[in-house]
Amino acid sequence: MTTLHELETPSLVLDRAILDRNLSRMQGRMDGLGVRLRPHVKTTKSFDVLRRTSAASITVSTLKEAEYFLEHGVTDILYAVGIAPGKLAHAAALIQRGANLTLILDNLAAAHAARALPVLIELDVDGHRSGVSPDSELLIDIAKTLGSSLRGVMTHAGESYNCASTGAIVAMAEQERAGAVRAAERLRAAGFDVPIVSVGSTPTATFAANLTGVTEVRAGVYMFHDLVMAGLGVCDIDDIALSVLVTVIGHQPERGWIITDGGWMALSRDRGTAKQQGYGVVHAGDGRALSDDLIVTSANQEHGIIARADGQRPDFTRYPVGSLLRILPNHACATGAQHTHYNVVEGSDSEVVARWDRINGW
Amino acid sequence: MTTLHELETPSLVLDRAILDRNLSRMQGRMDGLGVRLRPHVKTTKSFDVLRRTSAASITVSTLKEAEYFLEHGVTDILYAVGIAPGKLAHAAALIQRGANLTLILDNLAAAHAARALPVLIELDVDGHRSGVSPDSELLIDIAKTLGSSLRGVMTHAGESYNCASTGAIVAMAEQERAGAVRAAERLRAAGFDVPIVSVGSTPTATFAANLTGVTEVRAGVYMFHDLVMAGLGVCDIDDIALSVLVTVIGHQPERGWIITDGGWMALSRDRGTAKQQGYGVVHAGDGRALSDDLIVTSANQEHGIIARADGQRPDFTRYPVGSLLRILPNHACATGAQHTHYNVVEGSDSEVVARWDRINGW
Repeated sequence: MTTLHELETPSLVLDRAILDRNLSRMQGRMDGLGVRLRPHVKTTKSFDVLRRTSAASITVSTLKEAEYFLEHGVTDILYAVGIAPGKLAHAAALIQRGANLTLILDNLAAAHAARALPVLIELDVDGHRSGVSPDSELLIDIAKTLGSSLRGVMTHAGESYNCASTGAIVAMAEQERAGAVRAAERLRAAGFDVPIVSVGSTPTATFAANLTGVTEVRAGVYMFHDLVMAGLGVCDIDDIALSVLVTVIGHQPERGWIITDGGWMALSRDRGTAKQQGYGVVHAGDGRALSDDLIVTSANQEHGIIARADGQRPDFTRYPVGSLLRILPNHACATGAQHTHYNVVEGSDSEVVARWDRINGW
Repeated sequence: MTTLHELETPSLVLDRAILDRNLSRMQGRMDGLGVRLRPHVKTTKSFDVLRRTSAASITVSTLKEAEYFLEHGVTDILYAVGIAPGKLAHAAALIQRGANLTLILDNLAAAHAARALPVLIELDVDGHRSGVSPDSELLIDIAKTLGSSLRGVMTHAGESYNCASTGAIVAMAEQERAGAVRAAERLRAAGFDVPIVSVGSTPTATFAANLTGVTEVRAGVYMFHDLVMAGLGVCDIDDIALSVLVTVIGHQPERGWIITDGGWMALSRDRGTAKQQGYGVVHAGDGRALSDDLIVTSANQEHGIIARADGQRPDFTRYPVGSLLRILPNHACATGAQHTHYNVVEGSDSEVVARWDRINGW
């Protein structure tokens, strides 16, 4: 078996024990609230990860994900990006091949184009991005255009990523639930069947106190967690299952810098949102926290610059040229996408117990 | 032949006519200055792009790039990231397979480990990242450790990306040249052969007035250019050869937003450095500039939010659901890396004349 020391860095490392704990914690929450969890696979993009869950239905962010998971036998798929008319033929082909694929949209032009396929109407509950207001006339007009294609409503409270407190996330979860349920009730009052009421984001799924009227919850990043989630109080640092293994390639003693081969190509350009920690928090090569408070302060394409967060000079003898470090990511979705596979480990054991491939692109 | 309208978006588009103009302009500059150009392939990562140049030697940022270009018959390769001891066996294997591979390093530990392979000493001329001072004792000590492995010196004035004027870039180019030449002269005075004096970045290569004593220049992003380069005055907007084709998937009329399927996964998370233009400048689907001043103001994983830079509401009838737009990238290296291939076009003709694959990862 390979060990971490035999990997060519930078490499993506996934801690299976932490992953499994994150999966069962979220499943337990949803079971407690009596709602189906429909995991979003956009973070992990790997059937090897999905099979650790008990999910029979998934959410995807691209038709390529839909295609890949369909090939692995997953048929119940929600494509949660407003459908572009140019993608309808591809979507129809996936349905032909056995996918129980549902689309989303928020406008009449797309509704006209997509009338032959199963559709959820996308709702805007927080002014974050897409969707129609639950209280709008447009909601009813789109339903009329869709006719028997209509399967329900969905929304994503993306603003939950910008909440300043866990109390604010609890409130946002209720806003998300209430908006979706209100839209569903208006549609039912207008004579439509609305079997699906779909909501979710990792923060709102983690803090929702009540999901009455909701039929399913979507969340993705909870599987790996990251520094943004930790900054929001959604997880602890030791719930982060993903990291990038890097090698020290030099020092700049006067500036207090440790130079590594983990640049933004390996870490992604994501700078986080909730709490600024450069390009990531630095742990030891075996995954343990370091007593020095090291972060990646700057990154070039294939170089990372590590320094102490307090501005003090690190003890360079602890980080000699050739030694390994692990960088916890700001945003697991972005960091994962820079890599083709996961090197799976368990805890501080350096043995790579599995290699799990992931997909990228469109 | 495919047209742009048949591509599933988001897709990466490369304008071959602009590419060729950028290539010949930089080659002409280097010919005029009497210095060899050693293109950096980290931006383009494609043999189909490289073959449009006349270069026989290249710079790479990963051993995977070295391997890929070696397979395409390119043997003269500089790996321009400080060597990690764990990569020496891989580097030696590439040399065994016929690569004339040169490494770089800036410390004694790496020099001890790399003594059997050809090496340049990396110099720090601008406090940007890695390298030893041209005036340091360490420079001579590393040379002594390397002995006959020493091939020369190299530096990269990465601070040229942070220059506030083209005059400052001219000065930075001279600082880069002078530092490298001074180090080479000190090494020669100490009895070492220094056949290679390698410098470069796209900004300094574009504005260097004099390269006396330099034997080769490295640059990469000049092939595609991007909004960061345009912000620095290194190129014009119409010198940008790379763009991301996206489809309008919805509107938020009250907020003045056009929603597309081009999010940060397709554009990268890079926010630029020189001039803030969100996630990119929006052109028409055929590549032409728009009279509306549209930029991508925000991006989620698979959603882009486009708005007018002046805050006015766009005329939505010009951008109906299903219409195509092209996003010019902040940083071509980062945007390119989110894609597996280039859809090659020429000017505003929508025909895709070629598909050029590129590599990613490590």
